[in-house]
Amino acid sequence: MTVHIHPSIDSGVKQGSGSFAGGTLVCKCKDGKPVKVGIKGDVAHNHACGCTKCWKPEGATFSVVAVVPRDSVSVLENGDKLQVVDAVGGDPAARLQGLRHPYVRPHREQGRIRSTASTSSTPNCSRKQGSAAPGFAAFVSSVIESGVKPDEMAGIRSRLKELGLEPYDCLSPALMDAIATHVAKSKAA
Amino acid sequence: MTVHIHPSIDSGVKQGSGSFAGGTLVCKCKDGKPVKVGIKGDVAHNHACGCTKCWKPEGATFSVVAVVPRDSVSVLENGDKLQVVDAVGGDPAARLQGLRHPYVRPHREQGRIRSTASTSSTPNCSRKQGSAAPGFAAFVSSVIESGVKPDEMAGIRSRLKELGLEPYDCLSPALMDAIATHVAKSKAA
Repeated sequence: MTVHIHPSIDSGVKQGSGSFAGGTLVCKCKDGKPVKVGIKGDVAHNHACGCTKCWKPEGATFSVVAVVPRDSVSVLENGDKLQVVDAVGGDPAARLQGLRHPYVRPHREQGRIRSTASTSSTPNCSRKQGSAAPGFAAFVSSVIESGVKPDEMAGIRSRLKELGLEPYDCLSPALMDAIATHVAKSKAA
Repeated sequence: MTVHIHPSIDSGVKQGSGSFAGGTLVCKCKDGKPVKVGIKGDVAHNHACGCTKCWKPEGATFSVVAVVPRDSVSVLENGDKLQVVDAVGGDPAARLQGLRHPYVRPHREQGRIRSTASTSSTPNCSRKQGSAAPGFAAFVSSVIESGVKPDEMAGIRSRLKELGLEPYDCLSPALMDAIATHVAKSKAA
């Protein structure tokens, strides 16, 4: 059985150039008023995400999402079409305050790592040639909440590993450590 | 540098007999009124836990916690000394409604897998000879919130792997899948 993860990586993960300078993400609206979001510099922590909050293209089990510093992301055009997905929530993903729009999804995190924002990286428009490639898969078990059958999980985790995207049911250890460090500092302050 | 995980496993993980029939957990109170908790049958999902909610013995970085079906756990004596640790909370660990007491900690989970309860497994009294051994480590990054320095994490994860306890920053994939399946069924219902 073919396991579909996301159209931008199903045929293999294309590595970044290591010197990506940024670009403009443009949504796929056909009304002549696409949302445009500018990104300065390369993205970080690019990953496949199985959470139920992230927008996924048709037929994809995962989204592909990366992070840029908050100061490096700006809505350039038609920002009025964006909306908050989830201002406050109980799980780590829901703590992100995001803006939902097909193919353009800047996030601003409220509670934890305040200096970052993330933006989706999707095929054809949003992942720019040369930008840092996805490096792991997050919130993998959550795809069950989107309708994936539990007995498909072994195949999904196996395919993610084959693509070089180590599967995690939360974020990667590096990001989880960063979040815990932030929490520890906040408690101490 | 020696990495301390938990006194019951620092010298190696002792495997269970596979036929443990249950027993009585007794706390270490020296007032002649120890809390006693009866467990029927073997424990499941025994694991080292780094979350900030679990009680840890002096000097331990992790607790060691297992799960038994709710119907198989009962407070036998001095239950009035037990108290709720956290009735409702934002993170997965905090969703557990637990009873805190050194060496005896039955939990009842409120939100998610309602049919389980967990009880801590500690040296000298709570982990009974032959009961199922710890098999993984959960909420590993959370030990940073208890004061572990971020640069110690590589050594901690390495030691956990050496002990055969695969480190996860949430629960194990099997348990995360079970929770997601439970959430999916709850949504459908």
